[in-house]
Amino acid sequence: MAAPIDFYFDFSSPYGFLASQKIGALAGKYGRSVDWHPVLLGVIFKETAMVPLTMIPLKGEYSKRDFARSARFHGVDFRMPSKFPISSQAPARIVLWLKARDPALAVRVANALYRAYFVEDVDISNPEAAVAIAASLGVDAGEIRTAIGEPAIKEQLKREVEQAMAAGVFGSPYIIVDGEPFWGLDRFDQIERWLATGAF
Amino acid sequence: MAAPIDFYFDFSSPYGFLASQKIGALAGKYGRSVDWHPVLLGVIFKETAMVPLTMIPLKGEYSKRDFARSARFHGVDFRMPSKFPISSQAPARIVLWLKARDPALAVRVANALYRAYFVEDVDISNPEAAVAIAASLGVDAGEIRTAIGEPAIKEQLKREVEQAMAAGVFGSPYIIVDGEPFWGLDRFDQIERWLATGAF
Repeated sequence: MAAPIDFYFDFSSPYGFLASQKIGALAGKYGRSVDWHPVLLGVIFKETAMVPLTMIPLKGEYSKRDFARSARFHGVDFRMPSKFPISSQAPARIVLWLKARDPALAVRVANALYRAYFVEDVDISNPEAAVAIAASLGVDAGEIRTAIGEPAIKEQLKREVEQAMAAGVFGSPYIIVDGEPFWGLDRFDQIERWLATGAF
Repeated sequence: MAAPIDFYFDFSSPYGFLASQKIGALAGKYGRSVDWHPVLLGVIFKETAMVPLTMIPLKGEYSKRDFARSARFHGVDFRMPSKFPISSQAPARIVLWLKARDPALAVRVANALYRAYFVEDVDISNPEAAVAIAASLGVDAGEIRTAIGEPAIKEQLKREVEQAMAAGVFGSPYIIVDGEPFWGLDRFDQIERWLATGAF
Protein backbone atom coordinates (compact mmCIF):
# COMPACT_ATOMS: atom_id res chain seq x y z
CA MET A 1 0.00 0.00 0.00
CA ALA A 2 1.23 3.50 -0.85
CA ALA A 3 2.59 5.68 1.95
CA PRO A 4 0.33 8.28 3.55
CA ILE A 5 0.41 11.90 2.44
CA ASP A 6 2.00 14.15 5.07
CA PHE A 7 -0.20 17.14 5.84
CA TYR A 8 1.42 19.87 7.97
CA PHE A 9 -0.80 22.63 9.30
CA ASP A 10 -1.09 25.28 11.99
CA PHE A 11 -4.44 25.70 13.74
CA SER A 12 -4.16 29.47 13.28
CA SER A 13 -3.70 29.23 9.48
CA PRO A 14 -6.72 30.13 7.29
CA TYR A 15 -5.28 28.40 4.24
CA GLY A 16 -4.45 25.42 6.46
CA PHE A 17 -8.10 25.26 7.46
CA LEU A 18 -9.30 25.43 3.84
CA ALA A 19 -6.83 22.70 2.90
CA SER A 20 -7.98 20.55 5.84
CA GLN A 21 -11.45 20.50 4.28
CA LYS A 22 -10.09 19.10 1.01
CA ILE A 23 -7.08 16.92 1.78
CA GLY A 24 -8.99 13.79 2.87
CA ALA A 25 -11.09 13.58 -0.30
CA LEU A 26 -8.09 14.29 -2.55
CA ALA A 27 -5.96 11.61 -0.90
CA GLY A 28 -8.82 9.12 -0.81
CA LYS A 29 -9.43 9.52 -4.54
CA TYR A 30 -5.95 8.07 -5.12
CA GLY A 31 -6.17 5.41 -2.40
CA ARG A 32 -3.99 7.36 0.00
CA SER A 33 -4.39 8.09 3.69
CA VAL A 34 -3.33 11.35 5.35
CA ASP A 35 -0.95 11.78 8.26
CA TRP A 36 -2.02 14.99 10.06
CA HIS A 37 0.89 16.96 11.56
CA PRO A 38 -0.02 19.98 13.69
CA VAL A 39 2.90 22.45 13.78
CA LEU A 40 3.56 25.87 15.29
CA LEU A 41 4.19 28.55 12.67
CA GLY A 42 5.22 30.94 15.44
CA VAL A 43 8.26 28.76 16.12
CA ILE A 44 9.00 28.23 12.42
CA PHE A 45 8.66 31.95 11.56
CA LYS A 46 11.33 32.76 14.17
CA GLU A 47 13.79 30.60 12.25
CA THR A 48 12.83 31.97 8.84
CA ALA A 49 12.42 35.62 9.91
CA MET A 50 8.88 35.64 8.55
CA VAL A 51 5.81 37.36 9.98
CA PRO A 52 2.11 36.46 9.74
CA LEU A 53 0.63 37.38 6.35
CA THR A 54 -1.94 39.76 7.75
CA MET A 55 0.77 41.91 9.36
CA ILE A 56 2.57 42.73 6.09
CA PRO A 57 1.73 46.12 4.49
CA LEU A 58 -0.56 45.78 1.43
CA LYS A 59 -0.27 41.98 1.52
CA GLY A 60 -2.16 41.93 4.82
CA GLU A 61 -5.27 43.61 3.40
CA TYR A 62 -5.14 41.46 0.31
CA SER A 63 -4.79 38.29 2.37
CA LYS A 64 -7.94 38.89 4.36
CA ARG A 65 -9.86 39.40 1.14
CA ASP A 66 -8.26 36.31 -0.38
CA PHE A 67 -9.05 34.06 2.62
CA ALA A 68 -12.78 34.77 2.24
CA ARG A 69 -12.76 34.64 -1.57
CA SER A 70 -10.75 31.40 -1.62
CA ALA A 71 -13.24 29.87 0.84
CA ARG A 72 -16.13 30.83 -1.47
CA PHE A 73 -14.22 29.55 -4.50
CA HIS A 74 -13.66 26.18 -2.83
CA GLY A 75 -17.14 26.02 -1.29
CA VAL A 76 -15.93 25.99 2.31
CA ASP A 77 -17.73 27.76 5.19
CA PHE A 78 -15.41 30.41 6.62
CA ARG A 79 -15.57 33.39 8.92
CA MET A 80 -12.48 35.42 9.79
CA PRO A 81 -12.01 34.92 13.55
CA SER A 82 -12.30 38.04 15.72
CA LYS A 83 -9.00 37.09 17.41
CA PHE A 84 -6.25 36.40 14.84
CA PRO A 85 -3.64 35.05 14.79
CA ILE A 86 -3.71 32.88 17.91
CA SER A 87 -1.11 30.66 19.51
CA SER A 88 -1.99 27.11 18.64
CA GLN A 89 -0.22 25.10 21.33
CA ALA A 90 -3.37 23.80 23.03
CA PRO A 91 -5.14 22.37 19.96
CA ALA A 92 -1.83 21.07 18.55
CA ARG A 93 -1.04 19.21 21.77
CA ILE A 94 -4.54 17.72 21.92
CA VAL A 95 -4.26 16.34 18.39
CA LEU A 96 -0.74 15.07 18.95
CA TRP A 97 -1.74 13.28 22.15
CA LEU A 98 -4.77 11.68 20.49
CA LYS A 99 -2.78 10.61 17.41
CA ALA A 100 -0.76 8.18 19.51
CA ARG A 101 -3.95 6.65 20.95
CA ASP A 102 -6.68 6.84 18.30
CA PRO A 103 -5.53 8.35 14.97
CA ALA A 104 -9.02 8.44 13.45
CA LEU A 105 -10.40 10.27 16.47
CA ALA A 106 -7.43 12.67 16.32
CA VAL A 107 -8.47 13.67 12.77
CA ARG A 108 -12.12 14.14 13.80
CA VAL A 109 -11.01 16.31 16.71
CA ALA A 110 -8.62 18.30 14.47
CA ASN A 111 -11.50 19.00 12.07
CA ALA A 112 -13.77 20.05 14.93
CA LEU A 113 -11.10 22.36 16.38
CA TYR A 114 -10.42 23.99 13.00
CA ARG A 115 -14.14 24.44 12.34
CA ALA A 116 -14.72 25.91 15.79
CA TYR A 117 -12.05 28.55 15.13
CA PHE A 118 -12.71 29.39 11.47
CA VAL A 119 -16.48 28.98 11.31
CA GLU A 120 -17.85 29.46 14.83
CA ASP A 121 -15.27 32.01 16.04
CA VAL A 122 -14.30 29.99 19.13
CA ASP A 123 -10.90 30.99 20.55
CA ILE A 124 -9.24 27.56 20.52
CA SER A 125 -6.00 28.99 21.93
CA ASN A 126 -7.90 28.82 25.24
CA PRO A 127 -7.10 25.32 26.58
CA GLU A 128 -10.53 24.96 28.19
CA ALA A 129 -12.32 25.78 24.94
CA ALA A 130 -10.12 23.32 23.06
CA VAL A 131 -10.64 20.59 25.69
CA ALA A 132 -14.43 21.10 25.53
CA ILE A 133 -14.39 20.52 21.75
CA ALA A 134 -12.40 17.29 22.17
CA ALA A 135 -14.77 16.23 24.96
CA SER A 136 -17.78 16.76 22.69
CA LEU A 137 -16.35 14.01 20.49
CA GLY A 138 -15.97 11.56 23.37
CA VAL A 139 -12.47 12.38 24.67
CA ASP A 140 -12.20 12.30 28.48
CA ALA A 141 -11.95 15.97 29.44
CA GLY A 142 -10.04 15.43 32.68
CA GLU A 143 -7.51 13.12 31.05
CA ILE A 144 -6.77 15.40 28.06
CA ARG A 145 -6.68 18.53 30.24
CA THR A 146 -3.98 16.92 32.37
CA ALA A 147 -2.11 15.50 29.38
CA ILE A 148 -1.69 18.80 27.52
CA GLY A 149 -0.20 20.46 30.60
CA GLU A 150 2.52 17.86 31.04
CA PRO A 151 6.15 18.30 29.98
CA ALA A 152 6.07 15.12 27.87
CA ILE A 153 3.56 16.45 25.33
CA LYS A 154 5.21 19.90 25.24
CA GLU A 155 8.51 18.23 24.48
CA GLN A 156 6.91 16.01 21.85
CA LEU A 157 5.34 18.97 20.04
CA LYS A 158 8.66 20.78 20.08
CA ARG A 159 10.32 17.74 18.47
CA GLU A 160 7.53 17.49 15.90
CA VAL A 161 8.07 21.11 14.86
CA GLU A 162 11.82 20.55 14.61
CA GLN A 163 11.27 17.46 12.47
CA ALA A 164 8.86 19.38 10.26
CA MET A 165 11.45 22.11 9.67
CA ALA A 166 14.07 19.46 8.98
CA ALA A 167 11.67 18.16 6.31
CA GLY A 168 11.51 21.68 4.83
CA VAL A 169 8.20 22.90 6.26
CA PHE A 170 8.06 26.73 6.36
CA GLY A 171 4.34 27.44 6.03
CA SER A 172 0.82 26.07 6.33
CA PRO A 173 -0.56 24.05 4.68
CA TYR A 174 2.52 22.11 3.59
CA ILE A 175 2.03 18.72 1.97
CA ILE A 176 4.63 16.08 1.18
CA VAL A 177 3.75 13.35 -1.32
CA ASP A 178 6.37 10.62 -1.73
CA GLY A 179 9.12 13.11 -0.88
CA GLU A 180 7.79 15.91 -3.10
CA PRO A 181 6.87 19.10 -1.18
CA PHE A 182 3.89 21.32 -1.99
CA TRP A 183 3.09 24.57 -0.19
CA GLY A 184 -0.42 25.93 -0.12
CA LEU A 185 -3.97 25.03 -0.99
CA ASP A 186 -3.21 26.48 -4.41
CA ARG A 187 -0.89 23.57 -5.14
CA PHE A 188 -3.71 21.02 -4.84
CA ASP A 189 -3.95 20.95 -8.65
CA GLN A 190 -0.28 19.97 -8.83
CA ILE A 191 -0.68 17.49 -5.96
CA GLU A 192 -3.53 15.84 -7.84
CA ARG A 193 -1.47 15.46 -10.99
CA TRP A 194 1.45 14.13 -8.95
CA LEU A 195 -0.81 11.53 -7.32
CA ALA A 196 -2.30 10.60 -10.69
CA THR A 197 0.93 10.34 -12.66
CA GLY A 198 3.65 9.61 -10.09
CA ALA A 199 5.53 12.77 -11.12
CA PHE A 200 5.53 15.34 -13.95
CA MET B 1 -16.48 47.00 -24.36
CA ALA B 2 -15.27 45.72 -21.02
CA ALA B 3 -12.23 47.35 -19.42
CA PRO B 4 -8.81 45.74 -19.88
CA ILE B 5 -7.35 43.47 -17.24
CA ASP B 6 -4.44 45.12 -15.40
CA PHE B 7 -1.39 42.85 -15.34
CA TYR B 8 1.43 43.98 -13.04
CA PHE B 9 4.74 42.16 -13.28
CA ASP B 10 8.46 42.46 -12.57
CA PHE B 11 10.90 41.25 -15.22
CA SER B 12 12.86 39.44 -12.52
CA SER B 13 9.84 37.44 -11.29
CA PRO B 14 9.63 33.76 -12.31
CA TYR B 15 5.91 33.53 -11.51
CA GLY B 16 5.42 36.80 -13.39
CA PHE B 17 7.04 35.19 -16.42
CA LEU B 18 4.86 32.08 -16.18
CA ALA B 19 1.76 34.28 -15.85
CA SER B 20 2.84 36.38 -18.84
CA GLN B 21 2.61 33.24 -20.97
CA LYS B 22 -1.01 32.65 -19.94
CA ILE B 23 -2.63 36.03 -19.35
CA GLY B 24 -3.33 36.93 -22.98
CA ALA B 25 -5.20 33.71 -23.76
CA LEU B 26 -7.18 33.86 -20.52
CA ALA B 27 -8.25 37.46 -21.10
CA GLY B 28 -9.00 36.85 -24.78
CA LYS B 29 -11.29 33.93 -23.93
CA TYR B 30 -13.55 36.41 -22.17
CA GLY B 31 -13.22 39.20 -24.75
CA ARG B 32 -10.80 41.20 -22.61
CA SER B 33 -7.56 42.94 -23.46
CA VAL B 34 -4.57 43.17 -21.12
CA ASP B 35 -2.84 46.32 -19.92
CA TRP B 36 0.78 45.33 -19.19
CA HIS B 37 2.35 47.22 -16.26
CA PRO B 38 6.04 46.61 -15.60
CA VAL B 39 6.88 47.39 -11.94
CA LEU B 40 9.97 47.21 -9.75
CA LEU B 41 9.60 44.74 -6.88
CA GLY B 42 12.84 46.07 -5.40
CA VAL B 43 11.13 49.40 -4.74
CA ILE B 44 7.91 47.78 -3.52
CA PHE B 45 9.72 45.35 -1.19
CA LYS B 46 11.43 48.28 0.54
CA GLU B 47 8.00 49.63 1.50
CA THR B 48 6.64 46.27 2.61
CA ALA B 49 9.82 45.02 4.30
CA MET B 50 9.82 41.91 2.13
CA VAL B 51 12.76 40.08 0.59
CA PRO B 52 13.01 38.01 -2.59
CA LEU B 53 11.53 34.54 -2.15
CA THR B 54 14.74 32.72 -2.89
CA MET B 55 16.55 34.45 -0.03
CA ILE B 56 14.21 33.17 2.70
CA PRO B 57 15.41 30.10 4.64
CA LEU B 58 13.59 26.87 3.63
CA LYS B 59 11.17 28.84 1.42
CA GLY B 60 14.04 29.75 -0.89
CA GLU B 61 14.92 26.15 -1.69
CA TYR B 62 11.27 25.25 -2.09
CA SER B 63 10.67 28.19 -4.42
CA LYS B 64 13.37 27.19 -6.86
CA ARG B 65 11.87 23.71 -7.05
CA ASP B 66 8.38 25.17 -7.41
CA PHE B 67 9.34 27.57 -10.23
CA ALA B 68 10.50 24.66 -12.37
CA ARG B 69 7.66 22.32 -11.40
CA SER B 70 5.03 25.02 -11.98
CA ALA B 71 6.53 25.69 -15.41
CA ARG B 72 6.24 21.97 -16.26
CA PHE B 73 2.71 21.86 -14.84
CA HIS B 74 1.64 24.77 -17.02
CA GLY B 75 3.59 23.62 -20.07
CA VAL B 76 5.86 26.66 -20.22
CA ASP B 77 9.55 26.55 -21.21
CA PHE B 78 11.63 27.71 -18.26
CA ARG B 79 15.26 27.73 -17.16
CA MET B 80 16.33 29.31 -13.87
CA PRO B 81 18.63 32.19 -14.89
CA SER B 82 22.24 31.96 -13.75
CA LYS B 83 22.01 35.53 -12.40
CA PHE B 84 18.96 35.95 -10.14
CA PRO B 85 17.34 38.19 -9.07
CA ILE B 86 18.26 41.10 -11.34
CA SER B 87 17.31 44.76 -11.30
CA SER B 88 14.67 45.25 -13.93
CA GLN B 89 14.88 48.99 -14.67
CA ALA B 90 16.15 48.65 -18.23
CA PRO B 91 13.49 46.25 -19.57
CA ALA B 92 10.75 48.04 -17.58
CA ARG B 93 11.70 51.40 -19.07
CA ILE B 94 11.79 49.96 -22.59
CA VAL B 95 8.29 48.54 -22.28
CA LEU B 96 6.94 51.70 -20.68
CA TRP B 97 8.40 53.88 -23.42
CA LEU B 98 7.00 51.63 -26.17
CA LYS B 99 3.56 51.46 -24.54
CA ALA B 100 2.99 55.15 -25.17
CA ARG B 101 3.94 54.75 -28.83
CA ASP B 102 2.87 51.26 -29.96
CA PRO B 103 1.10 49.21 -27.26
CA ALA B 104 0.98 46.01 -29.32
CA LEU B 105 4.71 46.21 -30.01
CA ALA B 106 5.32 46.88 -26.31
CA VAL B 107 3.64 43.55 -25.46
CA ARG B 108 5.66 41.67 -28.09
CA VAL B 109 8.86 43.21 -26.73
CA ALA B 110 7.84 42.42 -23.13
CA ASN B 111 7.33 38.79 -24.11
CA ALA B 112 10.67 38.68 -25.90
CA LEU B 113 12.48 40.23 -22.90
CA TYR B 114 10.88 37.79 -20.44
CA ARG B 115 11.68 34.84 -22.69
CA ALA B 116 15.26 35.97 -23.13
CA TYR B 117 15.74 36.04 -19.36
CA PHE B 118 13.81 32.93 -18.29
CA VAL B 119 14.44 30.65 -21.25
CA GLU B 120 17.65 31.78 -22.92
CA ASP B 121 19.46 33.02 -19.78
CA VAL B 122 20.18 36.48 -21.19
CA ASP B 123 20.92 39.07 -18.49
CA ILE B 124 18.28 41.65 -19.44
CA SER B 125 19.34 43.95 -16.58
CA ASN B 126 22.13 44.90 -18.98
CA PRO B 127 20.69 47.84 -20.98
CA GLU B 128 22.57 46.84 -24.14
CA ALA B 129 21.19 43.29 -24.02
CA ALA B 130 17.66 44.62 -23.44
CA VAL B 131 18.00 47.16 -26.26
CA ALA B 132 19.21 44.45 -28.64
CA ILE B 133 16.10 42.37 -27.94
CA ALA B 134 13.82 45.34 -28.64
CA ALA B 135 15.81 46.09 -31.81
CA SER B 136 15.32 42.51 -33.01
CA LEU B 137 11.57 43.29 -33.10
CA GLY B 138 12.03 46.45 -35.16
CA VAL B 139 12.55 49.09 -32.49
CA ASP B 140 15.19 51.69 -33.38
CA ALA B 141 18.15 50.80 -31.16
CA GLY B 142 19.62 54.30 -30.99
CA GLU B 143 16.30 55.91 -30.17
CA ILE B 144 15.37 53.46 -27.38
CA ARG B 145 18.92 53.48 -25.94
CA THR B 146 18.72 57.25 -25.57
CA ALA B 147 15.13 57.19 -24.28
CA ILE B 148 15.76 54.80 -21.40
CA GLY B 149 18.65 56.91 -20.13
CA GLU B 150 16.60 60.10 -19.90
CA PRO B 151 15.14 61.53 -16.69
CA ALA B 152 11.62 61.58 -18.17
CA ILE B 153 11.29 57.80 -18.44
CA LYS B 154 12.97 57.22 -15.07
CA GLU B 155 10.46 59.58 -13.47
CA GLN B 156 7.59 57.94 -15.31
CA LEU B 157 8.56 54.45 -14.10
CA LYS B 158 8.85 55.76 -10.57
CA ARG B 159 5.32 57.16 -10.81
CA GLU B 160 4.03 53.91 -12.29
CA VAL B 161 5.42 51.94 -9.35
CA GLU B 162 3.87 54.42 -6.90
CA GLN B 163 0.52 54.12 -8.65
CA ALA B 164 0.77 50.33 -8.59
CA MET B 165 1.38 50.37 -4.83
CA ALA B 166 -1.50 52.79 -4.39
CA ALA B 167 -3.62 50.18 -6.20
CA GLY B 168 -2.43 47.55 -3.70
CA VAL B 169 0.28 45.82 -5.73
CA PHE B 170 2.82 44.06 -3.45
CA GLY B 171 4.02 41.17 -5.60
CA SER B 172 4.32 39.75 -9.11
CA PRO B 173 2.22 38.77 -10.92
CA TYR B 174 -0.62 40.89 -9.61
CA ILE B 175 -3.80 41.11 -11.65
CA ILE B 176 -6.76 43.45 -11.19
CA VAL B 177 -10.06 42.56 -12.86
CA ASP B 178 -12.79 45.20 -12.56
CA GLY B 179 -11.34 46.36 -9.23
CA GLU B 180 -10.84 42.84 -7.81
CA PRO B 181 -7.17 42.02 -7.02
CA PHE B 182 -5.54 38.62 -7.56
CA TRP B 183 -1.96 37.79 -6.59
CA GLY B 184 -0.12 34.97 -8.29
CA LEU B 185 -0.34 32.60 -11.20
CA ASP B 186 -2.11 30.27 -8.79
CA ARG B 187 -5.12 32.60 -8.73
CA PHE B 188 -5.75 32.15 -12.46
CA ASP B 189 -8.49 29.64 -11.63
CA GLN B 190 -10.23 32.28 -9.52
CA ILE B 191 -9.62 34.96 -12.18
CA GLU B 192 -11.25 32.73 -14.76
CA ARG B 193 -14.34 32.21 -12.62
CA TRP B 194 -14.48 35.96 -11.92
CA LEU B 195 -14.34 36.71 -15.64
CA ALA B 196 -16.98 34.08 -16.36
CA THR B 197 -19.43 35.01 -13.65
CA GLY B 198 -18.75 38.68 -12.85
CA ALA B 199 -18.05 37.78 -9.21
CA PHE B 200 -18.47 34.83 -6.81
